[in-house]
Amino acid sequence: MSAKPPAPDVLISEVGPRDGLQSVKATMSTAHKFAWIDALHAAGLREIEVCSFVPARLLPQMADAADVVRHALQKPGWTVMALAPNLRGAQAAIEAGVHKVTLPVSASEAHSLANVRKTRAEMVDEVRAVVALRQQLAPNTLVEVGVSTAFGCTLQGAVPEDEVVRLAADLAACGVDEIGLSDTTGMANPAQVRRLFQRVRAEIGERTGAAHMHNTRGLGLANCLAAFDVGVRTFDSSLGGLGGCPYAPGASGNVVTEDLVFMFEAMGVRTGVNLERLIAARESLRAGLPGEPIYGMTPEAGLPHGWSQHA
Amino acid sequence: MSAKPPAPDVLISEVGPRDGLQSVKATMSTAHKFAWIDALHAAGLREIEVCSFVPARLLPQMADAADVVRHALQKPGWTVMALAPNLRGAQAAIEAGVHKVTLPVSASEAHSLANVRKTRAEMVDEVRAVVALRQQLAPNTLVEVGVSTAFGCTLQGAVPEDEVVRLAADLAACGVDEIGLSDTTGMANPAQVRRLFQRVRAEIGERTGAAHMHNTRGLGLANCLAAFDVGVRTFDSSLGGLGGCPYAPGASGNVVTEDLVFMFEAMGVRTGVNLERLIAARESLRAGLPGEPIYGMTPEAGLPHGWSQHA
Repeated sequence: MSAKPPAPDVLISEVGPRDGLQSVKATMSTAHKFAWIDALHAAGLREIEVCSFVPARLLPQMADAADVVRHALQKPGWTVMALAPNLRGAQAAIEAGVHKVTLPVSASEAHSLANVRKTRAEMVDEVRAVVALRQQLAPNTLVEVGVSTAFGCTLQGAVPEDEVVRLAADLAACGVDEIGLSDTTGMANPAQVRRLFQRVRAEIGERTGAAHMHNTRGLGLANCLAAFDVGVRTFDSSLGGLGGCPYAPGASGNVVTEDLVFMFEAMGVRTGVNLERLIAARESLRAGLPGEPIYGMTPEAGLPHGWSQHA
Repeated sequence: MSAKPPAPDVLISEVGPRDGLQSVKATMSTAHKFAWIDALHAAGLREIEVCSFVPARLLPQMADAADVVRHALQKPGWTVMALAPNLRGAQAAIEAGVHKVTLPVSASEAHSLANVRKTRAEMVDEVRAVVALRQQLAPNTLVEVGVSTAFGCTLQGAVPEDEVVRLAADLAACGVDEIGLSDTTGMANPAQVRRLFQRVRAEIGERTGAAHMHNTRGLGLANCLAAFDVGVRTFDSSLGGLGGCPYAPGASGNVVTEDLVFMFEAMGVRTGVNLERLIAARESLRAGLPGEPIYGMTPEAGLPHGWSQHA
């Protein structure tokens, strides 16, 4: 009689199919997306951001968003998320049946205006409307906000921590379920990560959400460790480090899921993800995006001598 | 009147000219070594491992070891180190005038036999003889041991922590000044790094030396952060991540000095190293080793908007 595996200690939230694909030029076919998503599920991932709901003329890569959500929902035991930049997208995501819709809200006013042509205050109003819509259409659907540029902005430079904390409080007051912090620009450092997550948690408590770190300057895992140290238990990452707007060849953007899972499992922190199957899932990513560079130190080096996740 | 800059909070110990060069096939000319070492000094590094004293027939790359030491000693205000695998090498290093001689002692018996054809106990005897020689020839010269495979071994797998702690205690009893822990095989994780450094410090106190981490599976900086958290203040790394026996193309071995300095300085932890001059020093490394791959996320991404080290 086999015992039920213990509950994971951390939740790895895979963002490749959304954040990753949004950053590459090639379009992955719907069939390849299905196979990739299936491989990610088989590896044990329990949360996945599968697409964004944006006009297909702006982002042809996401034209099949509703189909992709439907496919992902067939798999049991995971949370299917989609990104929406606004109310209209959120409505489409909710109607497609996602478990969770996530909206990006910039902590930097300059980035907000450049990215969505709205001020931060206007984005908070948009989020409030999304929460109201959710109450009406699908009360069980969760609403998440990822606070982008929370650790610095390439346009305005430093982002005052007080403003990040205030924004998180405003979003919590709107009824947002989870508010995460994103290092959109790869400027975060571990001291700042600890400080800011602690301040946000002091303000909004258990609504504090995921750490979305970038590996732009090599600090992705160190920043995840720092976030873990202060109680963060959800981490965004992407298979092969796809996406996250890499600045330069060789510089991955998003934290690499394979390396993140290796770090936690090696520490004895359970992720629920099987690292060998996760590494095998790279094949379906490669098949769907031939020639696209994918990253990851652990897959390149191989698992250490004597590695056993469930020893 | 300009104020004297504050003392650094951590010591970055650059190992590229020894550990890095020992891992590449090409031989760097003595003139190029001098230029590279000069550039590293100009960047503000205050400790450097410049060569190893081994028979030139085994390692032609190090045939100019004594010249390189003499050159490095001309620069003021830094500690010039050399590696020696045994008493004979240590004598040559001391006679060349190094400030510090460093010896590798494996925590893994299998690795010790494979690497130096001596048991651990025989290596401890060798180290004891080096300490005695130092007392006789140059009492001010420091003796360091880097405990290799302290976090795991590719030959024997896990290395019991009790054995690492006992080895550190034996080495301290020999009169070794600094005993560091090396993740020779890239198997360390942050939880283990914290635990083992704390245990070693509890045993040998202030003789606890550097963290020598590898980036084989991407955890180099996270492991340095973990070591810093438990009081380690000396960190080995190499410019461009040169060396450290990379397993695979694209997988750097040693922690990249540029990324390590970026992490600490971004955290407000002073290294004494000027990051712009450090990145400029890559040119002299490239000039001396044309075509050799060098790594580093921070140099590729560039310094963040508004970066100022001495703001």
